[in-house]
Amino acid sequence: MNEQGLFPDVRIVLVETSHPGNIGAAARAMKNMGVTSLYLVNPGDFPSEQAVYRSVSAADVVENAVVVSNVDEALADCELIIGTSARDRRIPWPMLDPKSCAEKVVAGQASGSKVAILFGRESRGLKNDELHKCHYHVNIPTGEAYSSLNLAMAVQVICYEILQASLQQQVPCDDKAMAEAHDDGRGSAGENWDIKLATAQDMEHLFEHLEKTLIEIEFHDPANPRQLLTRLRRMFNRIRPDQMEVNILRGFLTAINNRVR
Amino acid sequence: MNEQGLFPDVRIVLVETSHPGNIGAAARAMKNMGVTSLYLVNPGDFPSEQAVYRSVSAADVVENAVVVSNVDEALADCELIIGTSARDRRIPWPMLDPKSCAEKVVAGQASGSKVAILFGRESRGLKNDELHKCHYHVNIPTGEAYSSLNLAMAVQVICYEILQASLQQQVPCDDKAMAEAHDDGRGSAGENWDIKLATAQDMEHLFEHLEKTLIEIEFHDPANPRQLLTRLRRMFNRIRPDQMEVNILRGFLTAINNRVR
Repeated sequence: MNEQGLFPDVRIVLVETSHPGNIGAAARAMKNMGVTSLYLVNPGDFPSEQAVYRSVSAADVVENAVVVSNVDEALADCELIIGTSARDRRIPWPMLDPKSCAEKVVAGQASGSKVAILFGRESRGLKNDELHKCHYHVNIPTGEAYSSLNLAMAVQVICYEILQASLQQQVPCDDKAMAEAHDDGRGSAGENWDIKLATAQDMEHLFEHLEKTLIEIEFHDPANPRQLLTRLRRMFNRIRPDQMEVNILRGFLTAINNRVR
Repeated sequence: MNEQGLFPDVRIVLVETSHPGNIGAAARAMKNMGVTSLYLVNPGDFPSEQAVYRSVSAADVVENAVVVSNVDEALADCELIIGTSARDRRIPWPMLDPKSCAEKVVAGQASGSKVAILFGRESRGLKNDELHKCHYHVNIPTGEAYSSLNLAMAVQVICYEILQASLQQQVPCDDKAMAEAHDDGRGSAGENWDIKLATAQDMEHLFEHLEKTLIEIEFHDPANPRQLLTRLRRMFNRIRPDQMEVNILRGFLTAINNRVR
């Protein structure tokens, strides 16, 4: 195994982590499972000796962590984005359990996609606007009596399942091939696809353009937004468009802009 | 759920744990997954405020922990004993992965057996004579670069799989197969979705409206169609929109129509 671990294209993104001990414990949990790319969005206390101490033999993961100031920076070049979510949200999002999450992650990496998995704040998880940047949400099932996992424990479970899925894939299995054929209508997460998937940045530009156009044609009233943009964002993220599809949509919006002005 | 959690007959046995923080973190990991019976064999430092602190809302698990002076006392009334083991042993033992371990645990409890799962010292795991008291050994697969899990993380993975196995058992097989066959990233066949999916007819009306609009704004030239409509159709079919999403899209098209005319 090279220094990049088993999953060089899979990054764990910790958003506004308060306790550096959790960063260290998460780094150890990641490296135990062969995941080594760590992004920290606005960490509360970092660099930190406590983080290095708790990482034990994963100090390299902590030291190589990429610190960024907002979630978009952490996601810009990613084609598959999954956010951890404990709560039921008002607008349901495509929801995975950890095992199916791991299968998508492993299939994503196999097809050349960069994958990000977002973990929110210790106190209150990810915010809605962060969750709305995700193609999928993943929820770790718990008992009813106590549902709040420690952050690093959640990272452990997700990374454990990723390694499991990867080990599983090395076992040929007819059933699996069947299951994947029905996955998202695109074969094994894009393996047979002709065009590269859009990145998170492509998608943000599309959403900005869409929002401006909706206002321009007076279909969307920013003073009374309701859930319109959230629903559109959810829908287009579910599509996981390729780059040509995003270009078609942008061209469509530009054609509207030209006719309206 | 009663105070005994989901798995009253399943006990976690921590053998000679040095760091009380690990006891607390293990207690939290257990309770998160519905496992609440904790035995401590000769803990290094217990009772301990650090253990209670790290357990967060699982202080009851820490406070109700049974402290014993040797492994036999912890196992005396158990019918199924499983020991965690990282290393290959000189004498091979029946070896489980965490998932099959969990299946045995859940089946054991269902048949009225008391089950113990042993976790060894932070530094060197279980001793051979302790491992030889076990019916099975369980090993958590890891990446090659760093194979030593934190003790509480190991408890988390094992208890997570126990809850998974228990949830899995509650889903009748046919439903599961159905759900998987229709998996499109929207939960089990859209079970958690708030709105009914669009019908084929809804989709045809949408495509007709879209085509007319594309011509109207001169984005699509029927004399030179290329693959535009095919690509859009493929994209929107991939989404499997619900009825509200189709209504939003139709509303968007109508707003364009109104502005252009």
